[in-house]
Amino acid sequence: MKLTILGCFSATPRRDTNPTAQVLEIKNHHFLIDCGEGTQVELRRNKIKFARIKHIFISHLHGDHFFGLVGLISTFRLLTRETELHIHCPKGLKEVITLQMKLADSWTNYPLYFHELTSNKSELIFEDDRVEVWTIPLDHRIYTNGFLFKEKVGERHLHMPSVIEANIDMAYYSKLKQGYDVINNDGVLIDHKKVTLPPNPPKSYAFCSDTAYKEDIVPIIEGVDVLYHESTFLEKHAHLAPKTKHSTAKQAALIAKKANVKTLILGHYSTRYEDLNAFKLEAQTIFKSVELAKDGKRFSFD
Amino acid sequence: MKLTILGCFSATPRRDTNPTAQVLEIKNHHFLIDCGEGTQVELRRNKIKFARIKHIFISHLHGDHFFGLVGLISTFRLLTRETELHIHCPKGLKEVITLQMKLADSWTNYPLYFHELTSNKSELIFEDDRVEVWTIPLDHRIYTNGFLFKEKVGERHLHMPSVIEANIDMAYYSKLKQGYDVINNDGVLIDHKKVTLPPNPPKSYAFCSDTAYKEDIVPIIEGVDVLYHESTFLEKHAHLAPKTKHSTAKQAALIAKKANVKTLILGHYSTRYEDLNAFKLEAQTIFKSVELAKDGKRFSFD
Repeated sequence: MKLTILGCFSATPRRDTNPTAQVLEIKNHHFLIDCGEGTQVELRRNKIKFARIKHIFISHLHGDHFFGLVGLISTFRLLTRETELHIHCPKGLKEVITLQMKLADSWTNYPLYFHELTSNKSELIFEDDRVEVWTIPLDHRIYTNGFLFKEKVGERHLHMPSVIEANIDMAYYSKLKQGYDVINNDGVLIDHKKVTLPPNPPKSYAFCSDTAYKEDIVPIIEGVDVLYHESTFLEKHAHLAPKTKHSTAKQAALIAKKANVKTLILGHYSTRYEDLNAFKLEAQTIFKSVELAKDGKRFSFD
Repeated sequence: MKLTILGCFSATPRRDTNPTAQVLEIKNHHFLIDCGEGTQVELRRNKIKFARIKHIFISHLHGDHFFGLVGLISTFRLLTRETELHIHCPKGLKEVITLQMKLADSWTNYPLYFHELTSNKSELIFEDDRVEVWTIPLDHRIYTNGFLFKEKVGERHLHMPSVIEANIDMAYYSKLKQGYDVINNDGVLIDHKKVTLPPNPPKSYAFCSDTAYKEDIVPIIEGVDVLYHESTFLEKHAHLAPKTKHSTAKQAALIAKKANVKTLILGHYSTRYEDLNAFKLEAQTIFKSVELAKDGKRFSFD
């Protein structure tokens, strides 16, 4: 599981800071999460192949989280994309994108699907044999979801010396990895546990931006490996957090602590701050394992 | 008169090339012309003060000419702009912007006016005591206008030695500059031409992007000081020009020659070309005074 931060600042794009966008690589998926203005250029800068992106998750319809989407959709068309694209987003975005395509008289030559969200309860919005994606209802000025990405338990690993020793035909390897006992070449039933190792523990990632402090999300994100939680403000501006429905670094840390996550990544910094390290220091008074998001930074969680 | 090129490439924004946007400084106006994705960052990079921009002219509703507008409008709001903003654009853009503001539940705190265009004839769309702006109907795949910016004839200049010699009271200086004869301190009528010099010749700038070769525009742009004309293609891809309703460098040069302009600036290059100098060389086989637009380049025409 890898996470590339394309942008992690709030409000407006600037020369050296980008609004929210990130790419989660998980079980061979490349999920694009939020898509502020300039995201397509940041994808190029970070050498992420456009064709790998088949699902885009938009948390909410403030511009710093989606103004780059219409351009990306258009660029996909210009690059003669054929692969289908799925947009998971709040209701309303389809109308915005469709209107702009209509005015430009330019339609996508690839299948484009919008999956519009309206529920205020956590719901499963994507699933295949490898991963699940759930919404995390957040508390912001407009309808907003975070997203929880969970690997499914994978296959067991063959312990080859034991497999060979047990005289098992190759045709049964796949069954063994799926956890079935099989009959060997001598007609003996072999316990799969004796010739395989357990699957890798499934990873999970929770993305929570933008939100006021909201303890209700704790049960949803309980025990995740990585939590990205917004921290727009430092303590000295804590009074602005409830008003703007954002969080402080300490509040993000408190959520991380209560949810017992392994690692907390902070981001969505207000552009008023020069020194981002203060975010880490304030959060670490509550929760130790804190990382700072930074545009262009790549996290590896294997 | 000064022109800053923020972006001059067609189609999609890339790491080192931006879609169309430029700022024309003329008679103390800062006119923003087109606004592709990333324009607000390019304005910052080129140190153009946001507050100076009061009029934005959008040629047409292909994304590479307006996808940066909604972000710029939002950023103006975040920066607590109070000055009014006028958008001159094809019909439809107001709906796009309004819909996005509605979904974000965020309205501008400054007066925002849309002046939507539908005419296929050249029309006067802005005028004050210093400049006029006219549309230039172009021939593209969707409704598209170029824009003609014309300085009005300014005031005459006082020739101070003559003014003093003629014994004229300061109270009459303004009248002299406006071209009136005045009575001096000795009661004698003074011919304004004898104590003033003619006004600066008024400058003019024509912006023509995107368009197929269209001779109908020649009478509109006749004799302008500077013509920016798109040249998406080189000769080797000339067959693509009519199909996509774009122009070649040679076609841009032919328009410049027929319209007897002083200087031609080429731009809106297809991103397929590495060497832009070929555009200049091909255009110069027809018209000598050719400049190449380049992102971040600043032209001065004083």
